[in-house]
Amino acid sequence: MDRIVNRRDLAFQLYEVLDAEALTSYPRFADHGRDTFDAVIDTAERLALDKFAPHAAKADAEEPRFDGQRVHMIPEIGQALDAYVAAGFMAAHRDEADGGMALPWTIAQACAALFTGANASTTAYPFLTIAAANLLSVHGNRDQRSRYLQPMLEGRFFGTMCLSEPQAGSSLGDIRTRAEPMGAGRYRLKGAKMWISGGDHELSETIVHLVLARLPDAPPGVKGISLFIVPKHHVDDAGQVGARNDVALAGLNHKMGYRGTTNCLLNFGERDGAVGELVGEPHKGLSYMFHMMNEARVGVGLGATMMGYAGYLYSLDYARNRPQGRRPDQKDPASPPVAIIEHADVRRMLMQQKVYVEGALALTLHCARLIDQRDQTEDAEARAALVRLLDILTPIAKAWPSEYCLDANRLAIQVLGGYGYTRDYPVERLYRDNRLNPIHEGTNGIQGLDLLGRKAMIDGGAAFKALMAEIEATLAAAEAVHAVAPLRNALARLARRAALITADLGRLAAGGDVATALANSTPYLDMMGHTVIGWMWLRQALVAAAALDAGPAAGDRAFYEGKLAAARFFAAQEIPRADAQAAILESHDRSALDIDDAGF
Amino acid sequence: MDRIVNRRDLAFQLYEVLDAEALTSYPRFADHGRDTFDAVIDTAERLALDKFAPHAAKADAEEPRFDGQRVHMIPEIGQALDAYVAAGFMAAHRDEADGGMALPWTIAQACAALFTGANASTTAYPFLTIAAANLLSVHGNRDQRSRYLQPMLEGRFFGTMCLSEPQAGSSLGDIRTRAEPMGAGRYRLKGAKMWISGGDHELSETIVHLVLARLPDAPPGVKGISLFIVPKHHVDDAGQVGARNDVALAGLNHKMGYRGTTNCLLNFGERDGAVGELVGEPHKGLSYMFHMMNEARVGVGLGATMMGYAGYLYSLDYARNRPQGRRPDQKDPASPPVAIIEHADVRRMLMQQKVYVEGALALTLHCARLIDQRDQTEDAEARAALVRLLDILTPIAKAWPSEYCLDANRLAIQVLGGYGYTRDYPVERLYRDNRLNPIHEGTNGIQGLDLLGRKAMIDGGAAFKALMAEIEATLAAAEAVHAVAPLRNALARLARRAALITADLGRLAAGGDVATALANSTPYLDMMGHTVIGWMWLRQALVAAAALDAGPAAGDRAFYEGKLAAARFFAAQEIPRADAQAAILESHDRSALDIDDAGF
Repeated sequence: MDRIVNRRDLAFQLYEVLDAEALTSYPRFADHGRDTFDAVIDTAERLALDKFAPHAAKADAEEPRFDGQRVHMIPEIGQALDAYVAAGFMAAHRDEADGGMALPWTIAQACAALFTGANASTTAYPFLTIAAANLLSVHGNRDQRSRYLQPMLEGRFFGTMCLSEPQAGSSLGDIRTRAEPMGAGRYRLKGAKMWISGGDHELSETIVHLVLARLPDAPPGVKGISLFIVPKHHVDDAGQVGARNDVALAGLNHKMGYRGTTNCLLNFGERDGAVGELVGEPHKGLSYMFHMMNEARVGVGLGATMMGYAGYLYSLDYARNRPQGRRPDQKDPASPPVAIIEHADVRRMLMQQKVYVEGALALTLHCARLIDQRDQTEDAEARAALVRLLDILTPIAKAWPSEYCLDANRLAIQVLGGYGYTRDYPVERLYRDNRLNPIHEGTNGIQGLDLLGRKAMIDGGAAFKALMAEIEATLAAAEAVHAVAPLRNALARLARRAALITADLGRLAAGGDVATALANSTPYLDMMGHTVIGWMWLRQALVAAAALDAGPAAGDRAFYEGKLAAARFFAAQEIPRADAQAAILESHDRSALDIDDAGF
Repeated sequence: MDRIVNRRDLAFQLYEVLDAEALTSYPRFADHGRDTFDAVIDTAERLALDKFAPHAAKADAEEPRFDGQRVHMIPEIGQALDAYVAAGFMAAHRDEADGGMALPWTIAQACAALFTGANASTTAYPFLTIAAANLLSVHGNRDQRSRYLQPMLEGRFFGTMCLSEPQAGSSLGDIRTRAEPMGAGRYRLKGAKMWISGGDHELSETIVHLVLARLPDAPPGVKGISLFIVPKHHVDDAGQVGARNDVALAGLNHKMGYRGTTNCLLNFGERDGAVGELVGEPHKGLSYMFHMMNEARVGVGLGATMMGYAGYLYSLDYARNRPQGRRPDQKDPASPPVAIIEHADVRRMLMQQKVYVEGALALTLHCARLIDQRDQTEDAEARAALVRLLDILTPIAKAWPSEYCLDANRLAIQVLGGYGYTRDYPVERLYRDNRLNPIHEGTNGIQGLDLLGRKAMIDGGAAFKALMAEIEATLAAAEAVHAVAPLRNALARLARRAALITADLGRLAAGGDVATALANSTPYLDMMGHTVIGWMWLRQALVAAAALDAGPAAGDRAFYEGKLAAARFFAAQEIPRADAQAAILESHDRSALDIDDAGF
């Protein structure tokens, strides 16, 4: 793998579309500038290509293995993570006082995604650690921050999120792990946790598990769940790592992809009870988790994007270099074959990948920037507006890239043909790895319910209206720009249709037919996803058109024209797919609901 | 795995929709009846579940391995194939005089597909052997049939198809393997062949490679390719297997799926030349291969279908048994969870799988039945009409199931959630195995070019018109049947649109803009696929509606009503996807053609 992302595109998205440099007007980022941002991105890219990408295939082939005592894995994983920590990426977005670089979340996430694109399974360890650290930084007390958070930022402790249990995944209200108070602010936990990525390994001094569990007499359901820190080893008051806590690896899950990441069934308190500490207040555990949910879900979407992006670039480079066949107008069989990028159907597959991965990158970076603005804005009203927008965009930013950048990986394999189906080329691994993303951090079915059943409807549709107003503003800006007219017109039509459908489904649900409305949550998520990505493409096309008008730098003309071509492709070839979802939604089809179970 | 196919559905398709019993009116099948057909299908199903399914995961985990001398694989593969041969499946469709059962191709293929659904990689060995045997039975001379074909039918020799080379896959005109006459009807071959499934193993006494190569002074391109038999071991005039021929395994390809099937780079004539025999006449090799192409491609489609079908049933059974969450109207968190089949979005995923796999089964069995009719019909004109219809349906029967039943596998994983992503459940393996089907036997890109550039256009569009006439006939029969009205109306509209688009693209190509027309070959294939599958669903719905009118047997009502519900789902949720492709085709979008290579 020679490239993970097109750096020209990343710069375009960050600086020309999102004006990430403007973030330096916030006091927290005042010491930064494009030069420091780019330097960090350079470092991330080099490290990802030099230390992460080279062992991705090996980590996939030689899965971590549990000998009953400890987990063994190839040494390259630990070496890569040491380099990651040494370069400062574990704490990249933390304050300098905490050993961080005080980078905007946008830049830190762009860097994180480069590592994911290079090697998703090795990157999962810091990805989870950073998520757990973020949670502790907000909800942990001073003592917890010093004993757990600080070593995590230093890369000495890694972290996990222990939510699911074998019988409770999407339905977290049904978790059964129990926590009994043992005095002195300590609790004894007992229960089994499933799908715990990074749940055991020897990569760090210890592992900080953030565990959802029920206190005695907790109310049933989601309102009776509390959050605990349960370290793999006891950590004393001075922060010293001691003996093993009662957290046992019951087994490693063997997955289709992400094979380098241990994924564990963990038993807490098999023997005498796993000792933990409460985070925050009782019964508020799930709300703490959800508090960090936007960041986590946007992060999943951005990671899925980069896995798609890496596959796109790999298949693009292959298509430029693989000779095969002739153009249809070349009838002489003795003529030399052309590079397959000359073939119309290969170009279509490349273009489809391009609009998926660059569109997904635009959306996920846009969301990351909204997170920065939300966190830095002093104005309460402006903050509320940002939260609203982020809330409605998050299920889309998680689900759309995980569906369509997976589809990009499918296309990358197809460009390589038989070669793409072999483990000698990275595209099949990317496809297997990326298949996880529609499942974890809330399945895409859950994202659909979240979008249609909650985010689009709450507060009289305030978030939906805010989103539509943003889209309308871009459409208005595009009014007079001839070069973007096809996408502008197609998107304007789609956005109007989406608004009507949203109102219609709202009426359906309000009228009591919640079942029919929710049966359509996935088509709705898909339609809204294409609407939002179409908007992202229109934003990009406007910037490109303006740059071309202004007279671009010598090497940039093809780049900007490529953006306009991709916008036309999106209008002609992708908006119709959203129309198909719209037609499904308008039909109020109930056939899947009404069929007798015996009729399947 | 407890089920591969819903036997009630298979019986419905074979006997109620396709009237497979009517095949017994042909003299060749006169001794058969539904009882013998069902007995063979019973045997195939039992054998597939007892001997093939149980080692599918093991064969996937413990890939064949080459020690430099020979290929090692788990013993269960050989044991399963011994049972397969002993039960008569290698020669199921051959005459009794050849040791066969004289089964119609339709029934033999239905059986073959059950094995593929149970364990695609073990089944690949007989699949390839049967394909090679079919070719020899038509184009081999008497001596070749006795020395090679007969032992293949007896399961003593296995076969392969050696077409591709490292530098020539989709473009077979560029193959370089050479064949020099050495007298006495023998040739010395020299060259490398890539992607040879079953290319080496110890499962049979020897392996009969059917090899495409060029004779000296052969014209360039596809018109200079001849077909040779090159056995792994020399086979003397009496059919005795002797010393090794100069065919060397240069390496095994390591694939994403189909891992139990060896896939080889073979070197022919590394040392002194591999000795082979010409099949048929010089320079006609590719036409012999293409002569068997319909059968092979329909077989790939049917296999892809059964892999989708097995995953559908697995996820269906899982959904019936997995408790998780509550219905939206149940607010009490202490209430017991429901089986996930109760959730609207899970039902949608099951229904989508159902319409894909049952629709694909209808099409591929329909094509198999056309092959039987073609082969048994005495009337030349009727035969020509059948060939025309088969020709145009074949690219669809190969490509559509390989795209959409792979998508069914994607959905099956999603129904299982995290569990579906692990190798403890078969759905992820099915997804990996099925990913091969859009690539081999002509990539789906090649199928699109074949359909739009050739089949839909030749003879003034005769085949297209014949297909449309068939669809119109079904639409006419559905005219007065209220229960099928939604699909009838949607399909009638789509078929008219497809006809206009076909004429339009024909004009575009005839006007010289071949590039724009062919840039649309994949959307065209997709649209035509949905049109044809919609037709297949209308045929099924008509039969179901009639059965419900007539008063079905006690246990059958839900089954027939399930077919009608699926037809409504197809009308509401799938026809719009075809409309999207139609809109793409109508746009004449050239953005992927026009973009500068540097703009990607």
